[in-house]
Parts: sequence; structure tokens; C-alpha cells
Amino acid sequence: MALANKINKRWIYIERPQTEVNEQHYKLEQAPIPSPQLGEILVKAQFISVDPYMRIQQSTSNNWEEPHPLNRVQGGGVVGVVIESKDERFQKGDFVNVYSGWQLYATFSANRARKLDPSVAPVSTGIGLLGMPGCTAYFGLMEAGKPKAGETLVVSGAAGAVGSIVTQIGNILGMRVVGIAGSSEKCALLKEELGCHETINYKEHSTTKMMLEALKAAAPNGIDVYFDNTGGWITDAIVQHINVHARLVICGQITQYSGKLDEVELGPRFLHIIFFKRATIQGILFSDFSHRMGEMEAQVSQWLRQGKIQYKETFVEGFQMLPQALNMLFHGNNIGKLVVKIKDNDDEKE
Amino acid sequence: MALANKINKRWIYIERPQTEVNEQHYKLEQAPIPSPQLGEILVKAQFISVDPYMRIQQSTSNNWEEPHPLNRVQGGGVVGVVIESKDERFQKGDFVNVYSGWQLYATFSANRARKLDPSVAPVSTGIGLLGMPGCTAYFGLMEAGKPKAGETLVVSGAAGAVGSIVTQIGNILGMRVVGIAGSSEKCALLKEELGCHETINYKEHSTTKMMLEALKAAAPNGIDVYFDNTGGWITDAIVQHINVHARLVICGQITQYSGKLDEVELGPRFLHIIFFKRATIQGILFSDFSHRMGEMEAQVSQWLRQGKIQYKETFVEGFQMLPQALNMLFHGNNIGKLVVKIKDNDDEKE
Repeated sequence: MALANKINKRWIYIERPQTEVNEQHYKLEQAPIPSPQLGEILVKAQFISVDPYMRIQQSTSNNWEEPHPLNRVQGGGVVGVVIESKDERFQKGDFVNVYSGWQLYATFSANRARKLDPSVAPVSTGIGLLGMPGCTAYFGLMEAGKPKAGETLVVSGAAGAVGSIVTQIGNILGMRVVGIAGSSEKCALLKEELGCHETINYKEHSTTKMMLEALKAAAPNGIDVYFDNTGGWITDAIVQHINVHARLVICGQITQYSGKLDEVELGPRFLHIIFFKRATIQGILFSDFSHRMGEMEAQVSQWLRQGKIQYKETFVEGFQMLPQALNMLFHGNNIGKLVVKIKDNDDEKE
Repeated sequence: MALANKINKRWIYIERPQTEVNEQHYKLEQAPIPSPQLGEILVKAQFISVDPYMRIQQSTSNNWEEPHPLNRVQGGGVVGVVIESKDERFQKGDFVNVYSGWQLYATFSANRARKLDPSVAPVSTGIGLLGMPGCTAYFGLMEAGKPKAGETLVVSGAAGAVGSIVTQIGNILGMRVVGIAGSSEKCALLKEELGCHETINYKEHSTTKMMLEALKAAAPNGIDVYFDNTGGWITDAIVQHINVHARLVICGQITQYSGKLDEVELGPRFLHIIFFKRATIQGILFSDFSHRMGEMEAQVSQWLRQGKIQYKETFVEGFQMLPQALNMLFHGNNIGKLVVKIKDNDDEKE
């Protein structure tokens, strides 16, 4: 590939959002294509990830880690192809998953690059089913959810990147799976393809009381495991229908991210229910499981070969769409993993 | 003991409390002294327990188990002496812990009676340090708290029946222990005798914001384990100061019992913090550990012999005081385990 008439482009994070994150918080800049040093690879992005955690990191009160610094390339997971390698483990043309952020070209330490096998599944799944969301779904459910066959699993954000994997794993494990999502289209897909026995469209049950009634109908034996991607009023209803020794896995609280981290949102107290039910709530994050990526890949690849699990992706085309794609996550405009697909001419000099 | 001029007395639970439980919800009645059948023992109560869980059971919305039935003897733990035995494992004069409730005399299945050893500690501890509260404290901290030497343990309701044991075990395990209690007298005792390195008098820090500042001073390295007996605004502050992978043990929510079970009290949402910190919240109840009472007795008896742990008891004298003693729990009028001590003449015919 001749790089002479190509240019690097990068989205620079320049302003902290107060509410929703959008294009105004970024600046698109051009830059030279870097050269790899010894032990590094030069990667050209093919698929770039947008994830809810990015919004959390952008807040100064995220209570988690240092906030994402301003005036730097927006961090994020990338699937790309190796253009040039100065490490013997990688060759030109290899597909890799790197955390190089929102830029078209990046050099990256070969030690921290993960090689992808295009024979298992399309490489875009390296930031989806066979990447961070897959790892979070798999270990979150297995380690914190402690699932048992015959139990009832309820998943909020069930049609999302992580949720759509959790529902399928729950089904593989022999659980009764109830998916909560925000459209009839999503609910149909959850039931027909993604392992859900019942679904609840939260837009048709838009109060905690209505949600509780819907849960009682969809989960008549109560809830044993709840995999929470949303938080807020949906979770308020869940807590009122849990069984003794239930496990609540907190994987996301997307209702609480956009501008609410600095404020205090009130909700009904429920720790007395957790007490009465001797339930467990556990917060999980990919970073707790990232060292076990290979274990997840082995199991999920096997399920893929057996036809037991599917990957669902929503593609947005074009590098220039990244900020808008991130914003889309907070409006539920995706089914499965939301991926920005880089176009062939995205790196052309203008 | 001649029973001829003696009489049984029983407190009958007759009315569900709407707010605080008090004498009006009970009726004192006299009854004949029963005779044991084969496999039973006749026990005369010496110490009768009042516990916060009784108030939960009295609510029809306790979300836990069937509410305590009306027009029955109030349930509860008792330490008594065997008056007559129709089981070879017990002899007249043996001390036992039975769950025979608020009555002076009761027959009880020998299979469900626990023999107490008066050489280890005063038998009143059979409903305290060496009974249900001890078991709850020990396994709650060990199993759900997963304590490690050098970590910071914060205990709310630290001067109560369970709290005063948790603080001491934390200290034995080499933790930095911070006790939260409601008077300077309790705080002094916690520091001088009950293993606390620091204490916080919540009446001097009576808002979540003030409590958070006090916690930052008392637990400068953050909170690794929180043993919660109170809930409410104190716990709101705790959540804001937890460390990554913190464990929150929910053993009681005494702020939520009196009449609030039917209403919904609002508080700040915090599951996003549990998520960011990958923390665990676990509700625990004695019944999950009751089958391991012997294991706790062995360990705590050893600590007693080694002078590493103390029992703290507040005695209220007289069978007629039981309802008032139960009410006292909700006003923090006890240090350690609140026990009603039966007087010698309580069972005399009037």
C-alpha cells in the first residue's frame, strides 16, 4: 500500500460535555502517518469502537480513574490491519485489536496488540463478540452472575453490545432469559435470534410500577440473576422482584452517565430488600477480566463454530461519523455492537 | 424446683405496628406450665432476646418471609435452664439456647435445643456473642466481607449487638477499624475496649456531607469493607468513600424498619459508584449461617480464652419489660446485646 498520498486523521477530545457528548466536544485534525519503532507495529484502522464507558471517562467526577485528558486523541478500541511491523510476532496484513483510539493510523507496541483470526469470524468482532464486550459479558455473567440452569436471567439493555451476548450465553446455559430493550424491533430480534424467552419493551412499560407488572408476567418464578446495563427506574423494578440469593451484576448504568455524574439523582432506597433477600450486587468492569481474554475467545469461538451464538453489529460508515456514533449510544440507536467502519477513501489527502 | 405455685406468662403479639413497635402491640397473658413429651425438654427462660429483625417480621411487606402471625407468642431466642427432660441428651439443670419466644416456660424439641457451656462465658451470651449475633457477625464479616489484614473496616451501629462483635473481630484480623455510633459514651467504649482505631459519633456529623468528611479523616486510605447495620444517610456517605473492589455487607437497615417498609424512602442513586469501583454488596442473614454455629463457637471461645474478645450486654430486668426493651433498640439505648433478664419472682402466681 502506497502511503505517499495518504494522510492520518485524528479526533481530538477538546471539551468536557456537561450533558450529552457530541461533535462539539471534538476537533478533527490531520497529522503525518507515524513510523513504527523497534517492537512496534503501524496499524491502519478498519473498525473503530464507540462505547458508553467513554462518556464516563470524560467526566471529572467519574469516581473511577483520572478523567480522559483534554487535547488528546479520544481513546478507544480499534480493529485494524498491520501496515508495517518491527516485531517478529506480526506481519504486514495481520489483523489486530489495539487500543489506539480515534485515529486512522497509529503505531502501537506489539506487546499490547492482540492478533485476530479472520477464519473464526469477521475481524470487526474483535471489538465486539470476540473483544471487550464479549469478555465483559462472559466473565460478568459467569463470575458475578454465577448462573445456574433453570434459573431466570433478566438483562437490561439486552439488545446492546454486551446485553446481546449475555442473553445468548444465558440461553446456552439453560436459563430462562428475559430481555429488556427499547423497541419492538429489538424485542423481536431478541426473541427470534438472541436467546430470549420473553422480552419487555420498556417504552411500553415506562414506569417502575408498570415494569414490575411486566416482570411478574415475564419472570413468574422471580429473578435469580440480573445483568444491568441501564440502572435507574428499570433497576428499581427489578429489585422488587428478585429471589432469595439473587445476583445483580452491574455492568453499566447508562441512565446515569450523561451529565448526571455531577448531580445526585434520587431513587427509592432498596438495600433493605438486598438484605432481606440475601442478594449480592457486584460491579464489574472489563479491566478485571482483560487478562482472561484468551479463555473467553476459546469458549465463544467454540460456540460460534457450533452455531450456538451470533454476533450482532450496527455499522456507521466513515471516520468523520465517530462523535455522532458515540452520541447514538445514548439514544439506543444500535442493535448489538455499534462500530464505525472506516471507508477506503477516509485517509485520502484532500 | 416446685412448680406448684408457679405460672407461665406469655407476651402475645396482637397488632401490627404502623411505625414503632411498643407495648400496645402485645398482650400479656397467663397460661399453665406445659409438660414435655418424649424427645422434648421443659425450659424455664432466664434471658430473653429482643432483636431488630422482630420488627421486620411484624410488617406485612417485609419482603422476606411470611409476616409474624397475630395472636401468637412473640418469637425470639431464649437462654434458659432445663426443668425437666424427656430426651437423653439433656439433664435437669442444663443451660440451653432455644427459640421458644417471649414466654417464661416452654416445651421444646431436644433436636432443636443448643446446649450452652457455662464455663466458657456467662450463659446469657448464648443469645449474644456466642449465639445468633455472634454467628451473624462472624460469618457476615468472614464470608461476605472477605477481610484482609491492613484493610480499613467501617462498621455502622458499631456499639450494637452485632456491630460490637464485628469491630473486635476486625481488630483481631489486623484491620484498621472505624466504628460509627450514636453517643460519645459508645464511641469511647469502642475505642477503649472494642477494637476501634477511630470512631465517628453520627450525632455530631448528622448529614451525609458531614459524615463523608468525618470518614475521610477517620479512613484516609478509603473503605475496603463496610459492615452496615443502619443504612440510610450514613450508608450514602460510605458509598462515596469506598475503594476499588470494596465489599459492603448489609446486615441490617435499622433506619428503614419502623413503618417505612410500606413506603418508599428516596435516597441518592449509587449503583454507578458500585460499578466504577467494581464493589460488591451482599445481604446476609443469620439463617444462611445457622448450620455453622459450632464453627463460630469454637473460634470465638478460643478468642475469649485468649482474652482477645469481650461480650457487651445491656440488661433490662423483668419479663414485663419485653415490649419496651424491643422498642429501645430503635432508640440506640443499648450497648452491645440488649437482653431481658427474667427475675426470680416473674413466674409467681399473683
